[in-house]
Amino acid sequence: MNFNLNQSIEILERTPKVYESLLKDSIYDLEKINEGDGTWNGYNIIGHLIHGEKTDWIPRAEIILGNNESKIFEPYDRFAQEELYATQNTNELLIEFKTLRKQNIEKLLSWNLQEFDLQREGIHPDLGIVTLKQLIATWTIHDLAHLNQLSRAIVKYFSEDVGPWKKYTRLLNE
Amino acid sequence: MNFNLNQSIEILERTPKVYESLLKDSIYDLEKINEGDGTWNGYNIIGHLIHGEKTDWIPRAEIILGNNESKIFEPYDRFAQEELYATQNTNELLIEFKTLRKQNIEKLLSWNLQEFDLQREGIHPDLGIVTLKQLIATWTIHDLAHLNQLSRAIVKYFSEDVGPWKKYTRLLNE
Repeated sequence: MNFNLNQSIEILERTPKVYESLLKDSIYDLEKINEGDGTWNGYNIIGHLIHGEKTDWIPRAEIILGNNESKIFEPYDRFAQEELYATQNTNELLIEFKTLRKQNIEKLLSWNLQEFDLQREGIHPDLGIVTLKQLIATWTIHDLAHLNQLSRAIVKYFSEDVGPWKKYTRLLNE
Repeated sequence: MNFNLNQSIEILERTPKVYESLLKDSIYDLEKINEGDGTWNGYNIIGHLIHGEKTDWIPRAEIILGNNESKIFEPYDRFAQEELYATQNTNELLIEFKTLRKQNIEKLLSWNLQEFDLQREGIHPDLGIVTLKQLIATWTIHDLAHLNQLSRAIVKYFSEDVGPWKKYTRLLNE
């Protein structure tokens, strides 16, 4: 186990900045940055992160920590971004993600969570019993898992351009 | 083909900033961010990027564009970073990477490359004939391929902490 609340908060604070450094004012056409038909493009990824800030991580933590008897989470719509964020440009999406994340970290810090709190449980509609610690750990890696997806999509965008170097690029040989 | 020189330069300018946003002043122990025995950790990755700035991309472009009759590249040592950058801390490595990249982009811009130049060829010791365009495209995706590796390693670092959510995290089920 490697989870540490302060470290998780540090990562959660950083990742909007990482996405911003990669994409802000970009001359990419983010719609073209994808891994083929039916895969997410750059807009979908940021929209999905925004939707998580609004409906997933903190609302679920509030269910775990709150006084309601039912600890069952609302299902999370993994495809909501396709309709919700279709009209915003990259910079608008990045600002919204950063703003929501800042508010959510402030809320998380205001709870002054102790080890006892981190062991409290909620009920995931598909996965069953989960702890607050597992929820925060998942939130933490979620940004990075999608950074992994986005970086892979950009690499693949240039797959034909590298010519013989394709041989050395593992992502282009999967 | 998606290569565009201006876009490549933009990506090459951005990526040191992306690594900095992710790692600067970090409370990570970068040595522990890896994918198991024998895999690269965070230090190895930044060290490898630095070594590429020094010995790979621009020196090879200079062979392609220069007046020497031999167009054969020096082999690139993919493991040099293990000895060369073992004593520097994260912030020192990040600054060195950013500084070298800045100098290399200035050099690239100073050449005022035209489509004709981008078609000029060099000889890779293993891959054979390659063009300058392919070299620059490979340089461009190289940062992102290692960002992909680094983000995957951070996700895996927390693999036990997410509990049942492992099921939804593709990188933890490979």
